[in-house]
Parts: sequence; C-alpha cells; structure tokens
Amino acid sequence: MEPKAATDQNVTEHNLPDTIAVLSRTPATLDALLRDMPEIWTLRSEGANTWSAFDVIGHLIHGERTDWMPRARIILQFGETRAFDPFDRFAQRRESEGKSLGQLLDEFASLRAANLDELKALKLTPEDLRRRGRHPALGSVTLSQLLATWAAHDLTHLHQVSRIMAHQYRAAVGPWSAYLGVLHCEGHSS
Amino acid sequence: MEPKAATDQNVTEHNLPDTIAVLSRTPATLDALLRDMPEIWTLRSEGANTWSAFDVIGHLIHGERTDWMPRARIILQFGETRAFDPFDRFAQRRESEGKSLGQLLDEFASLRAANLDELKALKLTPEDLRRRGRHPALGSVTLSQLLATWAAHDLTHLHQVSRIMAHQYRAAVGPWSAYLGVLHCEGHSS
Repeated sequence: MEPKAATDQNVTEHNLPDTIAVLSRTPATLDALLRDMPEIWTLRSEGANTWSAFDVIGHLIHGERTDWMPRARIILQFGETRAFDPFDRFAQRRESEGKSLGQLLDEFASLRAANLDELKALKLTPEDLRRRGRHPALGSVTLSQLLATWAAHDLTHLHQVSRIMAHQYRAAVGPWSAYLGVLHCEGHSS
Repeated sequence: MEPKAATDQNVTEHNLPDTIAVLSRTPATLDALLRDMPEIWTLRSEGANTWSAFDVIGHLIHGERTDWMPRARIILQFGETRAFDPFDRFAQRRESEGKSLGQLLDEFASLRAANLDELKALKLTPEDLRRRGRHPALGSVTLSQLLATWAAHDLTHLHQVSRIMAHQYRAAVGPWSAYLGVLHCEGHSS
C-alpha cells in the first residue's frame, strides 16, 4: 500500500466489505484493550448512572443477540410491514451478572463471528441493501443504513470506552488535562 | 476476578502499574483496529487540516521518540532547572512519508516496548514520582503527572481514531446518526 496524505474526501456511502472490515476487528480490539486489565480500567464508570467498560461489553453482546442480524432478517422477510422489536439498553445488567470480563469478551467474539458468517452467507445484492424496514422510533430505514450503523455503533462504544478510561485519570494528569481532548468529551456516546 | 457493579468512585490518583497496563496495551489495540484495513478507515480525515488514523500513529511514534521518556529523564536529571523541549505536533508529516501503516504500527510497538523496558528499569519510588519538572507552557508538573498523561494521551488518540473512522459513515447511517454519540463529538481530541 502506498501511503497517501489525508485529504478531505466527500462523504462515503455504505460499502459492505468496509463495514465487515470494522465489524470483524472490534472483538480483537476490545480484547487487546481490556483483557486482564486492572479493575480501575474496566469496572469504573464516569459517575452515577453511567456505564463501565464491563457494561459496554455486555451491551454489545445483547446487540449481537437481539439487534443487528435479527433486524436484518426482519427487513428481508417483512420489509416495512413489521417494525423492529425495541432494543433494551439495560439488558446487560441482568445478562452480565456473575460473569467475568474475560467471559464477556469471549462471548462477544463468538457471537460476532457467528453473525458475520450469517451476514456473508446472505450474499446481499445492491438491491437487497436498498430494501426498507421500519424502526419503531426512526421510521423507514434501509438495510444498508442498518449495517452501516452496526459498524458505527462499534466505533461509538470504542469512543465511549476510551473516554470512560481516561476519566479515571482526570485528576492524575494535573495541568495536562487542558490538552487532552478526551477529558472534554461530554458523554454524548454513553 | 469477581465482577462488581460499576460505581461512582472518587477520582483516582496516579498508580504506576495501572499506567503501565494502559501503555503496554495500546500498540496491540491499534494494531487490531487498523492493520490491513481498507483505506477509507486509515487514510481519510475529518476534513481540511484534520488528521487521519495514519497521521495519529505517526504522532504517537514521534511522542515515543521525543516526548515521554526524554521528559522523564529531564525531570530526574535536572528537575525544574531545565524546561522540556517543546513537542512538534506536525513532525509525523515528514517522518511518516513513504511508509505504510503496517510499518508505522510495527515501529510504534517496538519503540513503546523499549520505552516501557526503560521505565521499568528506573524502579521509580513514590519520592521520584513527586519530583517536579518544568513544562514550557504549563509550568511546574510532576513526574507522576507526566506518566499519567502518557497513558491518557494514548486514550485521547484512541478516542480520536474511533471518531475519525465513524465520521466516514456519517451519511451512510441515515437517521441513526441521532443515536450515535461519536458523530456528535466536536473534534476536541484532534
């Protein structure tokens, strides 16, 4: 690959191989970042009613089970005639109970791999990707938008985990806090 | 490890093993996220005068060469009598030229490993960590603050990379953009 200078390209439309490239890397990325980490980095949150990294992995697991591929199947089978089931953003409180972070990381990796196998087996055509479904709050959406959101949702939670972790050192860095953008992010991805 | 519920703990002071736990994982985290990725995820930026993921890795490499351990050595040798050399935030434009992202990821991992070996060999005492140096803009800082900032700086750039990547799909996600916090982060970690 010849490196090129960063440029201000136009906005990109959804491309399935690019989406799969993100989705397939997220489990290993979170594993490298979090496995066997001291608990300060995995069990602490940003304050009352916010999530820890442990909570985030549980949320990602719940998405693999109930959100992304189930919604893709609803679009392909029912189109806009059947709305998606609402997603429970707090299910992980119950489902992660009694598990270690290592177990959750394993579970996420295994569910994600199975979902990507299923996604690839669908051999989606450009026409399939334009098919529409009905989101209970957002209204009409395309399969393409659902799959792009699956990848961007991984990134929003990686963004959140890096922010939760940095938050634990907000006093320890002293005057450098002024220079550290992550300490000025206002929790918009929680 | 027994998992515990996330709680709103007090702010944590710097702890050297916790800092090393972050510093030692960052190269593998960025490698898992970025190596062999399609160029949409590695060479694109957030617009004019912003960085790509490729630029960020170059910046981290320059920090390993000229910022963190060199400043730690200045504190230990000169205390506040000699200010740190200013850090060049644009050196990577020159230093990364002609290299592939894979080469940069290898270089970062190797420099970081060598720096961590040197850091551990210093066998810093609590008294060492309280020693003060002089930052050219921020004034008096401690060795402890410098080392905590090294870890938080990794996290601020992981936060930035996840945001740069998500930015490429800001149109592709359609109406879901309202739900994706990373798309509402205003570039405070660039």
